[in-house]
Amino acid sequence: MTYNELADQIFQKQSYLCVGLDTDLRKIPQHLLDETDPVFAFNKAIIDATADLAVAYKPNIAFYEALGPRGWESLQKTLDYIPNDCFTIADAKRGDIGNTSGLYARTFFAPDAAGLNFDSVTVAPYMGRDSVMPFLDYPGKWVILLALTSNSGSADFQRQPIDEQELFEVVMQTAQTWASPEQLMFVVGATQAGEIARVREIAPKNFLLVPGVGAQGGSLADVSKNGLTPDCGLLVNASRSILYASSGMDFAEKARSEAQAMQTEMAGYLAALER
Amino acid sequence: MTYNELADQIFQKQSYLCVGLDTDLRKIPQHLLDETDPVFAFNKAIIDATADLAVAYKPNIAFYEALGPRGWESLQKTLDYIPNDCFTIADAKRGDIGNTSGLYARTFFAPDAAGLNFDSVTVAPYMGRDSVMPFLDYPGKWVILLALTSNSGSADFQRQPIDEQELFEVVMQTAQTWASPEQLMFVVGATQAGEIARVREIAPKNFLLVPGVGAQGGSLADVSKNGLTPDCGLLVNASRSILYASSGMDFAEKARSEAQAMQTEMAGYLAALER
Repeated sequence: MTYNELADQIFQKQSYLCVGLDTDLRKIPQHLLDETDPVFAFNKAIIDATADLAVAYKPNIAFYEALGPRGWESLQKTLDYIPNDCFTIADAKRGDIGNTSGLYARTFFAPDAAGLNFDSVTVAPYMGRDSVMPFLDYPGKWVILLALTSNSGSADFQRQPIDEQELFEVVMQTAQTWASPEQLMFVVGATQAGEIARVREIAPKNFLLVPGVGAQGGSLADVSKNGLTPDCGLLVNASRSILYASSGMDFAEKARSEAQAMQTEMAGYLAALER
Repeated sequence: MTYNELADQIFQKQSYLCVGLDTDLRKIPQHLLDETDPVFAFNKAIIDATADLAVAYKPNIAFYEALGPRGWESLQKTLDYIPNDCFTIADAKRGDIGNTSGLYARTFFAPDAAGLNFDSVTVAPYMGRDSVMPFLDYPGKWVILLALTSNSGSADFQRQPIDEQELFEVVMQTAQTWASPEQLMFVVGATQAGEIARVREIAPKNFLLVPGVGAQGGSLADVSKNGLTPDCGLLVNASRSILYASSGMDFAEKARSEAQAMQTEMAGYLAALER
């Protein structure tokens, strides 16, 4: 999906909601455990309930990998089930030396080589340029680079001072010499909403993938106020607050209500944009 | 495997060789492609040919993941086949927010929860403390944290100046407040042999996992001269130079010759240590 197609989807759906498919067998409604593939059954119900409200879905690969080979099968089925008008994110946080990153790129971007067909993958920047470039060799596919993450550990290294800046700013500036906003997004946690204005100075056009609203405590209002661009430029992710809104038979209905509330709020912020 | 058990294995085998099982279907001898599981057939032959010469095996997970669910099956079979006296490393370079890193830890460390039973996993430090700690919750298991990697991109961020240091030094110092050398190693590339003396000032006792000897051009002599401790303190990895020493029927024999040459050289360096 291109930059313009993504922006069009956002204004059409009046939403920049990304639903994080962090599907945990210990948390899904117990009646689904009787299904042949409980993870897929859960994801299918969540997608059915939210596909008109969300512009993106983001399975965190850890949740699938932890289940062994059958987890990868659930992931493949889930990806196939997501409607084509939704942007897909493999939240994998991969990164290795060049030739090995090439294999990770194949895993997530090359369906003709036994891989999956995601639109994008999250990548960790620590290993630098050659660890990122192989993902950019796939036309129309995106790298979403970790910049300033939502967790407490983000203070340990991402905020280390380098000259007049902090590491995450150096990462964002350097990465922009590798790829244009057509192929490069950044992860910036909603718990860091106070920093989003600084992020926008460095990356005025790039989309930001913003986790941390909901269970982690970030504010959609703050993120939107500081992060929106004329093309929207935001994908705000919610995982647990939507997926586990109810643990009963009504889980999909309650998930929809949560997604609906976020979409309605987002529509308000989008309406205020001049596009 | 504990620190002392690993050191004992090293002095018993007179080797600190780690064989990187970066098994690529495009590079293994063509006659193996007729096997039901060519990846496992190749790994089994390599392990049979090198198990008395190597103290560790390191499958890079990208190579298995790129094959989809059957790749994970090959990985499981390979891990089961590695003799118990060898240290095992899941070279996965994972790292996510705390609760998600917990799932990655389960994937590699918790066989009773559908996971694998590796001794250690490589972890990327960018997301900080809570992204690393869940791996340390498993007694007897190790984190091998990326510090100064072997690739060209290591210059982009790892060597950024922070006060009087560089980022990789801050990473190593900070991580030592999280875990002792009984559970924490660092990745330092052999192509960075000139920096290993600095690394040893910061981490005098930690084992270092050193990739980059062989195909990537690092020198075993330089690494050993600068990196050895009284307990050895090194695991030097070779992947392509051993695995693909021959593409013919004699691949295992040629792999053994390569491993033997490294082990012989290592025995010389170990003999010079005072233990």
